[in-house]
Amino acid sequence: MIVYFNGQYLKLEEVKISPFDRGFQYADGVYEVIRTYFGKLFRYADHLERLKDSLRETRINYTRTGELEECIYKLFELNKFTSPNISVYIQITRGEYFPRKHSFPPGEVNPTVFISTFPIEDEIAAFEKGIKVILEKDIRWSKCNIKSISLLPNVLSNQRAVEEGAEEAIWLRDGKLLEGSHTNFWGIKNNEVWTAPLSNFILPGVSRKVIFEICSNMGINVLEQAISENEINQFNEFFITGTTTEIKPVGFIGNVQIGDGLPGINTKKIYYAFLEYINRRIWD
Amino acid sequence: MIVYFNGQYLKLEEVKISPFDRGFQYADGVYEVIRTYFGKLFRYADHLERLKDSLRETRINYTRTGELEECIYKLFELNKFTSPNISVYIQITRGEYFPRKHSFPPGEVNPTVFISTFPIEDEIAAFEKGIKVILEKDIRWSKCNIKSISLLPNVLSNQRAVEEGAEEAIWLRDGKLLEGSHTNFWGIKNNEVWTAPLSNFILPGVSRKVIFEICSNMGINVLEQAISENEINQFNEFFITGTTTEIKPVGFIGNVQIGDGLPGINTKKIYYAFLEYINRRIWD
Repeated sequence: MIVYFNGQYLKLEEVKISPFDRGFQYADGVYEVIRTYFGKLFRYADHLERLKDSLRETRINYTRTGELEECIYKLFELNKFTSPNISVYIQITRGEYFPRKHSFPPGEVNPTVFISTFPIEDEIAAFEKGIKVILEKDIRWSKCNIKSISLLPNVLSNQRAVEEGAEEAIWLRDGKLLEGSHTNFWGIKNNEVWTAPLSNFILPGVSRKVIFEICSNMGINVLEQAISENEINQFNEFFITGTTTEIKPVGFIGNVQIGDGLPGINTKKIYYAFLEYINRRIWD
Repeated sequence: MIVYFNGQYLKLEEVKISPFDRGFQYADGVYEVIRTYFGKLFRYADHLERLKDSLRETRINYTRTGELEECIYKLFELNKFTSPNISVYIQITRGEYFPRKHSFPPGEVNPTVFISTFPIEDEIAAFEKGIKVILEKDIRWSKCNIKSISLLPNVLSNQRAVEEGAEEAIWLRDGKLLEGSHTNFWGIKNNEVWTAPLSNFILPGVSRKVIFEICSNMGINVLEQAISENEINQFNEFFITGTTTEIKPVGFIGNVQIGDGLPGINTKKIYYAFLEYINRRIWD
């Protein structure tokens, strides 16, 4: 596997992250996951914008974001991928600095930039039945709008989901279902779609934005309103979204079956509209 | 500099952390900072106990903690340190795994273990005047009792402190002063010492424990009670503690001068008792 590391294209084994990299010692970095359809990066401009937001919020001084797209396509070429579906992981940290000290390194330190790419096997099967999610108390910090690598809470909550036979943990804060450990969360009742409003407790998902556009085109109303735990039984359908996840219908929240546990009719409609949107290739 | 890395003693430049190390991509790891006095690890048993707690809480399956002490002393030897004051940094992550996935890697993955050591230059000067701290809204997650490397909030808050000419940021949650970005926080009024009680919002500091013992020996009462922001003016003295920080008197909270801005009489007494405790070498 050829990866990008600080301006070079290297074999993965050749990459040497320093133990004094701020990303390794302080989770002092940000990331993006982007994917292609038909060999083309999906909604790259949105991902780039969010990456810039994350860099600005963490004050990581990396100004060469304009070069990333070219680096990514170069990686596709070097890796000789045959699949048109590729996942791209970009991580940028504040760089290497010794001695260890919480505050930013003095002077100019070059950020560490790492990009890896690999083919995706699509899980169409997931749409045949609803997935299971669990509810978890939101243990995260209060800047969840930053796509930072400070992901230990996400790891711990997602692991609990896996151990309960679920695919995702949905976070509850003050009784509201906010989002999953790596997805946004949606409910449908009375033909209206609900999802939590953007705030410091929500990552502004690129797929989230796409769903808003698709629903708007379909004439479906989307309310930016978080669903309360005690309102769950008022909803007919739920689904989660994410770059890699795409759209997945929820069949179970904990041990509570949603409807017949199968993908709901409205979720299906949105999913088909999403596939059509992908296939029309009119996105950037 | 010779460091320890996964069973080997290497030059720092030879250490190669994988970009797929869970510590680099997910902050999926824990750490300890320990120091020596007179060439001997200070309160090693307490640090080891806390490290085991952190490993247990994060479910990182590293069972060879019993070997760490020997590795540390071996590093002192290999680095030919002449200073009797050495700082030790230990980091243990869940290890390297590909492909990237939030939940724990399946099967057995070896944790990544990294230890570095370096001589400390003691800052006696700090005790001549009080340091400045600032108050910051606590933006951290709700498992602050784990000494995890998910430290981005600590970085951002400490950086703000530095930019305001302060040494430390003290976190306020629900109006209470809990602890600093890398220290515990204390106040004194009516000859009683106050500090926040242990909880999921506080790191159980080893120096914190030492201060309890010292105060007990001196007949000073310590209340485990967090100080409210609006009670600050009722206190005559404040100080912070930490392994590297030791004890530092606080002269300013934000722009508010505490007393005459110099180390308070009780803080001094505790500091001298601490020095005596160190010098008697009866700690483990």
